[in-house]
Amino acid sequence: MTIDWEGSFAPRMRRAKGSAIRELLKLLDEPGIISFAGGIPDPALFPREEIAAAAQRILGDPRTAAAALQYAPSEGYAPLRRFIAGAMAERGVACAVDNILITSGSQQALDFIGRLFLAPGDTVLVARPTYLGALQAFGAHEPLYEPLPGPGSNRMPESGGSGGARRVKFAYAIADFQNPTGESLSLAERRDLVAGAAALGLPIVEDAAYELLRYDGDMLPSLLALDAARAGGIDAGSVLYCGTFSKTIAPALRIGWIAAPRAVIDKLVLIKQASDLHTSTLDQMILHEVASTISADHLARIRRTYRSRRDAMLAALSACFPASCRWTRPAGGMFVWVTLPAHLDAEDLLRRSLAEAKVAFVPGASFHADGTGRNTLRLNFSLNAEAIATEGLRRLGGVLHRALAG
Amino acid sequence: MTIDWEGSFAPRMRRAKGSAIRELLKLLDEPGIISFAGGIPDPALFPREEIAAAAQRILGDPRTAAAALQYAPSEGYAPLRRFIAGAMAERGVACAVDNILITSGSQQALDFIGRLFLAPGDTVLVARPTYLGALQAFGAHEPLYEPLPGPGSNRMPESGGSGGARRVKFAYAIADFQNPTGESLSLAERRDLVAGAAALGLPIVEDAAYELLRYDGDMLPSLLALDAARAGGIDAGSVLYCGTFSKTIAPALRIGWIAAPRAVIDKLVLIKQASDLHTSTLDQMILHEVASTISADHLARIRRTYRSRRDAMLAALSACFPASCRWTRPAGGMFVWVTLPAHLDAEDLLRRSLAEAKVAFVPGASFHADGTGRNTLRLNFSLNAEAIATEGLRRLGGVLHRALAG
Repeated sequence: MTIDWEGSFAPRMRRAKGSAIRELLKLLDEPGIISFAGGIPDPALFPREEIAAAAQRILGDPRTAAAALQYAPSEGYAPLRRFIAGAMAERGVACAVDNILITSGSQQALDFIGRLFLAPGDTVLVARPTYLGALQAFGAHEPLYEPLPGPGSNRMPESGGSGGARRVKFAYAIADFQNPTGESLSLAERRDLVAGAAALGLPIVEDAAYELLRYDGDMLPSLLALDAARAGGIDAGSVLYCGTFSKTIAPALRIGWIAAPRAVIDKLVLIKQASDLHTSTLDQMILHEVASTISADHLARIRRTYRSRRDAMLAALSACFPASCRWTRPAGGMFVWVTLPAHLDAEDLLRRSLAEAKVAFVPGASFHADGTGRNTLRLNFSLNAEAIATEGLRRLGGVLHRALAG
Repeated sequence: MTIDWEGSFAPRMRRAKGSAIRELLKLLDEPGIISFAGGIPDPALFPREEIAAAAQRILGDPRTAAAALQYAPSEGYAPLRRFIAGAMAERGVACAVDNILITSGSQQALDFIGRLFLAPGDTVLVARPTYLGALQAFGAHEPLYEPLPGPGSNRMPESGGSGGARRVKFAYAIADFQNPTGESLSLAERRDLVAGAAALGLPIVEDAAYELLRYDGDMLPSLLALDAARAGGIDAGSVLYCGTFSKTIAPALRIGWIAAPRAVIDKLVLIKQASDLHTSTLDQMILHEVASTISADHLARIRRTYRSRRDAMLAALSACFPASCRWTRPAGGMFVWVTLPAHLDAEDLLRRSLAEAKVAFVPGASFHADGTGRNTLRLNFSLNAEAIATEGLRRLGGVLHRALAG
């Protein structure tokens, strides 16, 4: 009897489909393509020599190598957890080691949080647009989405964490340089969000992936820092903070973390254990050694490079894009968000752009939980050097002018 | 408002509790403990120098380092997928690269398979006892369990993959040196299982973690190999094969794979993407280089070492354990399974053994989906050198004699 695979899958999987981002990543290898698609750091900024030296020290000594290659606790490599707890304290949040779980990148943090909280029909508050990977991670549990209060909307939903027909399980927020728009919450908006969630007893999932990639102005306190100050500490608070080294050290090591109340970490450790036992110990040890010894100049260089690329992208957009397009002017992160005239469809534009100009980007609809945003698109500015990006935007501007002309 | 965390979790998570194995792993660090608990390879057998050399080559060259440290496809590192496809062919299964998904250890393979197939109330066929990690991975989806046909039971369930009130989604089987019993399916039992599942249109999930750790006799064909021969190829067949390098290279690199029909891999890639984007590229590249160049003597040395430890454990059991205990005599793998007299409880024995003899093992109940097996326990023989294991079994035998005496 031949297997009816589709029929044998769980109902939630029958609807699952691929990510536009991941499919588009494949285009990066084609010759001549200028891609603004991925949320990709410049590999020239990876601290390669430091990583190589750390790997050599760890693997060169039989004792540290045995630890790096053997099964290890699900919670993560203890010195790395301690280092992260210290780094969180520097950002205004007193953390114990037991408040930290190491995850395989912050994507896994979002996946675990979805697994911990969500059952079909639960509601999650998300910005519109929001990070596609979060929608994918939560989507496996078939939640409903409602808009997160934010710029232009300070209203919190009426029913909170408990009771009522509709169960809001948590709010998902990116306070700094949001993916995909590049926009941030102001200090007042952060305070409002934290106070509003606390009044409802509603957990906040804070995705802090871009927090350190600030190019203008001073760092603002994280939602976790504000909430811990309000509640009298992380354990009494209601924020689950997802951090990552993917943007500041190297993404392929897949090292992220969750900082959260102990009661939440205890359950997440069980999910980690059932899910993949633990994150690569070698990678955790390398990351720990590099992150705890790297000079401050490393982050300064990343910021300098990306600031210059952001500026070049904004200049090229002004020079080459039709006046009827609008875009964000982010103070950090990796992305500029473009809104086209309402009648244009960014997926049609992408097909035309690839064919006519060999330029790739991500159409904006997939970042919208409700399928709106068809006239929006995301441009990454961290990967390409200024001259390449400027050429790509000149070509894309040409496609846009022709699309608007007829 | 303080958060009621327990009340805010998804219902399936409220019952989740920790693993005896993972908790016991923590005992390994205590001085004086002799532990038979973990399913742990001997770190002295890790190919440390080969791994260090591979890491240095990959990270020493800016081009390969950029690939090793950058975001990468969810499917896995293409040369590693090709290498695995080739290795599968050597074991009698013609595979294309598209039949292979890289996972973060085979625990993640089991987790993904649970996510792909299972909804609450679905049935999974498992051996009794079976691998605890599989029960944890599947358990998140609240399945029912029924016994897998095997030694002593060749009956397949009456209703198969489609129709009927009870929906059997797949059979989970470890054909070689099963965790926890160390027992294997004979060739006839493999043929019966494959034919029985095929007649019902029932997928088989084959966990091949211990396949290469054979100390006596010749390798038997995998369930996948038998099924591909029956169906005319892997894509027409019904087996999902989970492999790992954890037992033959090093577990902490967390590299495993699933070999399965393309229709299944396509969906699993979506799960991988939403779950952690991809497995560490550095670890995949290191693993590829080591696995594809290591001498045959490496595996021979592992087999020689573990064979000798198995023999020493069987000798010590005969010498030191009461005559009323029974145990398996495995031809491979890492475990011996002990059945105590029916009135003894292995969890009580563990508490007593830790207090009186500083010896750890895993009580057998947690390997039973139905909570039976309280008078069973699992002993690992791969980690400890013969003299240490013999001393540990002498002490544990003493505890047992005393427990039986009063």
